[in-house]
Amino acid sequence: MFTSRAIGFVSSPYSETGAVPKGLGAQHEAEGVLKILPEYEAGLADIEGFSHLFVLWEFDRASGFELTGTPPSDNRPHGVFATRSPRRPNPIGLTTVELLNRQGAELHVRGLDMLDGTAILDIKPYLSSVPAEKLRRGWLAQAEARKQQSSPR
Amino acid sequence: MFTSRAIGFVSSPYSETGAVPKGLGAQHEAEGVLKILPEYEAGLADIEGFSHLFVLWEFDRASGFELTGTPPSDNRPHGVFATRSPRRPNPIGLTTVELLNRQGAELHVRGLDMLDGTAILDIKPYLSSVPAEKLRRGWLAQAEARKQQSSPR
Repeated sequence: MFTSRAIGFVSSPYSETGAVPKGLGAQHEAEGVLKILPEYEAGLADIEGFSHLFVLWEFDRASGFELTGTPPSDNRPHGVFATRSPRRPNPIGLTTVELLNRQGAELHVRGLDMLDGTAILDIKPYLSSVPAEKLRRGWLAQAEARKQQSSPR
Repeated sequence: MFTSRAIGFVSSPYSETGAVPKGLGAQHEAEGVLKILPEYEAGLADIEGFSHLFVLWEFDRASGFELTGTPPSDNRPHGVFATRSPRRPNPIGLTTVELLNRQGAELHVRGLDMLDGTAILDIKPYLSSVPAEKLRRGWLAQAEARKQQSSPR
C-alpha cells in the first residue's frame, strides 16, 4: 500500500463544505485553478491538448468513514460505494473538470466541487464517455423521479 | 495525508502486464469480478442500480514514478498527467466498468484492464458523461491521425 502525497492544491471559490452546490440538480460550474507543485510541473507536458481532465483529490477535511449514509440528493440511505460521500475507506474524491487553459504549473479549470486548499493526488486525461443512452443512474434517478412527483409544475 | 487500504481485490483474466490490451484502438471488454472484502460489503447497498462504475485501484506492481514517458499508444513522450502511465506520484488507477450483476460482495463487471489480484481502493457511481462532441483528446488524437496516414487502407 502507499501513503498519499500532494502533487498540488486546488484554488477554489468554496472555502467551506456548505458552499459547495449539492443535492439533486446541483450544477458545478465553478472556475478555479489546479496549482501543481514546481517539482511535478514536467508531468503536465501536453496536457493542454485535452478538453477535460479527471482530478483525483483528497477529502482532507473528512474523518473516518461510514458504510451507509443518506446523501444530500435523497432522503434514504445508500451504500458509500453507491454515493459520492466524503467519508470513504480511502478518502479519495474524483471530479471531471473542463480545462480552460494552462499557465506553467497552473491549470485553469471549470467544474470544481472541491474546497479551497484541497490536496490534489493525480490528474488523468478524460479519453472517452459512456454514451448517455447506456447509462442507468440507480437510486439517483429514483430520487429525481420522486422529487418531480412531489412538486408538480 | 492517508495510507491506502484495500477494500477488495480484482479477479481478472490478466495475470501479467503484457496481456492487457494497450495502445491505439485497444479494446477493454474483459469480464471479471470485483471481490469486496466482507467488512466493506454493506457499502455496496443499492449499487446494482447503476449501469457503470468508476473503480479506483492501486498500481501495486509499479514502483516509483517518472514525470514524462512514452506511452504504448505513441512514439513520443508526454507528461505523466497527460497519460495513463502506471508510474505516477500516487499510484492510483482509474477504470470505468459496466456492472453486469452483483452477488453479495462480488460485482461482476465488463471492461477490466487491471491485473489479477489488484487491490481496489474505491468504487463510485458513474453519474454523467461529457458529450462526445465536446471532447478533445490531445496527443492521443494526433497519434491516431499519424497512424492512419502511415497505414492507408
